[in-house]
Amino acid sequence: MAPAGPRFGDAIFANVERVNAELFTLTYGAIVRQLLTDLEEVEEVNKQLDQMGYNIGIRLIDEFLAKSNVSRCVDFKETAEMIAKVGFKMFLGVSASVTNWDADGTCCGIVLEDNPLVDFVELPDTCQGLYYCNILSGVIRGALEMVSMKTEITWVRDMLRGDDAFELQVKLLKQVPEEYPYKDDE
Amino acid sequence: MAPAGPRFGDAIFANVERVNAELFTLTYGAIVRQLLTDLEEVEEVNKQLDQMGYNIGIRLIDEFLAKSNVSRCVDFKETAEMIAKVGFKMFLGVSASVTNWDADGTCCGIVLEDNPLVDFVELPDTCQGLYYCNILSGVIRGALEMVSMKTEITWVRDMLRGDDAFELQVKLLKQVPEEYPYKDDE
Repeated sequence: MAPAGPRFGDAIFANVERVNAELFTLTYGAIVRQLLTDLEEVEEVNKQLDQMGYNIGIRLIDEFLAKSNVSRCVDFKETAEMIAKVGFKMFLGVSASVTNWDADGTCCGIVLEDNPLVDFVELPDTCQGLYYCNILSGVIRGALEMVSMKTEITWVRDMLRGDDAFELQVKLLKQVPEEYPYKDDE
Repeated sequence: MAPAGPRFGDAIFANVERVNAELFTLTYGAIVRQLLTDLEEVEEVNKQLDQMGYNIGIRLIDEFLAKSNVSRCVDFKETAEMIAKVGFKMFLGVSASVTNWDADGTCCGIVLEDNPLVDFVELPDTCQGLYYCNILSGVIRGALEMVSMKTEITWVRDMLRGDDAFELQVKLLKQVPEEYPYKDDE
């Protein structure tokens, strides 16, 4: 497998098409505002952002595999490192780190060192239950499902809620072994 | 004024924070899909995209003025060149050109040479009245309003509607002279 170090992520990020981060931040803010207006319930907005992210993730994985040119990860630990060190760098231009592994290696935390989605964002009191960045959890869930990993992803720390960092908990629920559609001797 | 050539736009674009263009494209697609589901009427979606763009534009102009470090444009012609050569480059990483000036220099076309919003997009028959990229017209309208220019912006060519290019018509309706809040001798 190609090395999943931060510099590897930088090199890929330098070679993909990019747009201005502030435009992205403001565009994402416009989505959240629109959903809050249309759906009213904060819980529904969280669900919808996650679903939007899922739909994006199941397509973005192709770009990831094509541009990163990485080979298959041997296990979930390597997958988590790949998301943190290459995925976040390649798509958002930021670094993330993996932490808080459980004993059997199926659950960890991904801590974002920077989060362009929340620049200039402050949540009003009426939005206290909102997971503003929930699109990210959906993206990871969708992308991992396309490489046969069913996961549950939740925010365990959120700076917009007063925590000291952004941390996603990624829990592997099931790993579906890939089946080839035909046998070798057919 | 600093030169508004394409290379000048490139230099600024190289120095701003950026995110992956495909992530932006898919995120924008998710907004449009969401609006189509929630609002049903294509005409309402066009309006909403324009309004979202306007809200983004009135904030993005600050980033533009801060990062581009350009001085005041002398007239609307220079403003249009600035949008095409510096603005589009700085935010979307693409070039655009100004064309089709009317006789009195208050109306022109801005032709996009590339449009990252529409990668992989095909409109189904039910969306034929949709101006998919209407957020862009709103962004320009909002940004120009913040520098005292009231404009009307419409798509005159749209490749998703079968035209050979993307062209926005930008029409200056009114230029409000800036008033200082106090007089020099006060």
